[in-house]
Amino acid sequence: MPPPSSYPDLPTLADSVRLDDDGVHLLDRRVFPFEHRWVRARTVEEVATAIEDMVTQSSGPYFAVLGGMVLAAREAAGRADARERLGAAAERLIATRPTNDQPRKAVTWVLDEVDRGRTDLLTAAETGAREGERDYRRRCAEMGRAAAALLGPDARVLTHCWGDLYLLGVVQAALEAGNRLRFVCTETRPYLQGARLTAESLAEMGVEATLVTDAMPASLMREGSVDALVTASDRVSMDGHVINKVGTLQLATAARAFGVPFHALCHAPDRNSPTGADVPIEYRDGSEVCHALGHRTAGPRVRGLYPAFDITDPHLVTTVVTDRGAYRPDEVGDYWQR
Amino acid sequence: MPPPSSYPDLPTLADSVRLDDDGVHLLDRRVFPFEHRWVRARTVEEVATAIEDMVTQSSGPYFAVLGGMVLAAREAAGRADARERLGAAAERLIATRPTNDQPRKAVTWVLDEVDRGRTDLLTAAETGAREGERDYRRRCAEMGRAAAALLGPDARVLTHCWGDLYLLGVVQAALEAGNRLRFVCTETRPYLQGARLTAESLAEMGVEATLVTDAMPASLMREGSVDALVTASDRVSMDGHVINKVGTLQLATAARAFGVPFHALCHAPDRNSPTGADVPIEYRDGSEVCHALGHRTAGPRVRGLYPAFDITDPHLVTTVVTDRGAYRPDEVGDYWQR
Repeated sequence: MPPPSSYPDLPTLADSVRLDDDGVHLLDRRVFPFEHRWVRARTVEEVATAIEDMVTQSSGPYFAVLGGMVLAAREAAGRADARERLGAAAERLIATRPTNDQPRKAVTWVLDEVDRGRTDLLTAAETGAREGERDYRRRCAEMGRAAAALLGPDARVLTHCWGDLYLLGVVQAALEAGNRLRFVCTETRPYLQGARLTAESLAEMGVEATLVTDAMPASLMREGSVDALVTASDRVSMDGHVINKVGTLQLATAARAFGVPFHALCHAPDRNSPTGADVPIEYRDGSEVCHALGHRTAGPRVRGLYPAFDITDPHLVTTVVTDRGAYRPDEVGDYWQR
Repeated sequence: MPPPSSYPDLPTLADSVRLDDDGVHLLDRRVFPFEHRWVRARTVEEVATAIEDMVTQSSGPYFAVLGGMVLAAREAAGRADARERLGAAAERLIATRPTNDQPRKAVTWVLDEVDRGRTDLLTAAETGAREGERDYRRRCAEMGRAAAALLGPDARVLTHCWGDLYLLGVVQAALEAGNRLRFVCTETRPYLQGARLTAESLAEMGVEATLVTDAMPASLMREGSVDALVTASDRVSMDGHVINKVGTLQLATAARAFGVPFHALCHAPDRNSPTGADVPIEYRDGSEVCHALGHRTAGPRVRGLYPAFDITDPHLVTTVVTDRGAYRPDEVGDYWQR
């Protein structure tokens, strides 16, 4: 059993990775909302495997890696090579998702605090993990307020995949401002994150959400039923390329064709990625495309292709919304000069 | 049991609606290729219901309506109100699919031959149905040759949904010309026609087919992996609007953004549709969007929206390929002046 939620007033997924004495508890997003099944990861390797197997995704891996680093510190504490062990755990956890760089950021919170040497290694790891979580939630709230300010009081917002705390930040800010957003959610094949995670979480918050297939948004834009496209991002390069769940690019081209603004959410652009080509794109097993909810969708001779992310060029992006406010994509590098 | 295929060298779906003494036999495309289950429709009403329930789609309803009109003639023959009964059957069958006008064309083949009065009503209906089938297959072959001529010898072709005999015409013409096309097929949610019908039929023909989700094509176009977008159409208006399975518009906007030509297949533009706004768009039950292969994809509070077709504006279409050759969309009305 996982420990109780620290955020009982938020949707289930807002606190779906929890550290406890016996390991990291991850709500299994592969079966949500049909089942509320928790996976317990007792070691760094089990945390890493859970991330690779998509037990959690979006913001989930960030929290899982924070917890995983604490597990590593528990195991390493008191050993002569404790710091090396922690470093090896960090590498293992970073390698779980090549495109999304949240695992690297989570690891950095813990290692930086450990390397400061103010306390013993385990206490430092716990402090770093706690600070890392607090920082992430604060940034999502600030980014959410900046994004909500770009949307009208009753905007019809199209979103893709599951933006997790990024999207919840926008919704919370809009609700606090008394605005009534309505959402169109793409189902986001093959894992159906939009259908299972986004639409469900919005429903939990009492926000209207309409589900469509991944092919339908352009048709809704053409008839004027969408006021803005808002997605999270796995990474934004310093020159404004938005890397996010595959399908974002296609929606951005449609949005541009029909005059719909595209606001991409991102805590900060990635200083290690000067341009989009610097971001590795994760390819997952093509057979995942040939399945839906575990059932085969095509005959045995058919081969699937699964680029898990895509790159949207800056000229297709209206705004990159950060925790320091909104930027034009070609100016997002200025974030680091404030 | 259905009668044997008249086209044993073609893929299964090329002859998947067959008239016999005991009714119209329809291969159930909802479970193909996992099961080869045939539905027998003994009356016009059963044919109509089978079309409405998606037992068959794409070119299938055309052949089903031809067969349904023969069933109606069998039932009506010898009655004083035989022609009225045939007319009522025609109306019922036309009403099955508001957007696709193939049922209307099929009906016309039969009623015109009946109204010529050269033979008794039943013989005339059978002749009209036979001629209607021959004409449809001839047009698909001619259109296919014109489309294949637009594609390179080893073009990578993106297609959406299942173009049925339209698409098979292109593939056959390419194969006869010694060209080696390779296909990328969108899975086409919610019914997965691309995964289940297109990819399977191409595999039956020995043609390479890669399956992707409906959200991925823009990403492939951006990296230069697609040479052309080719789809069938349910209708083309006289001013070049292409009405086809929902998702076509979104692919067309992406194709335009990345310089990929879009060739839409259409026997002939519809003289009764001056522009796209004249074509009614069929909305199907939104709960179909919340299911995949019969399994629920979203929680019970989530509501789906299902516009089954969309309208692609002429400026997003490169070519409308007809049985009289290729036209620029803004000149497709000239078809009827040849």
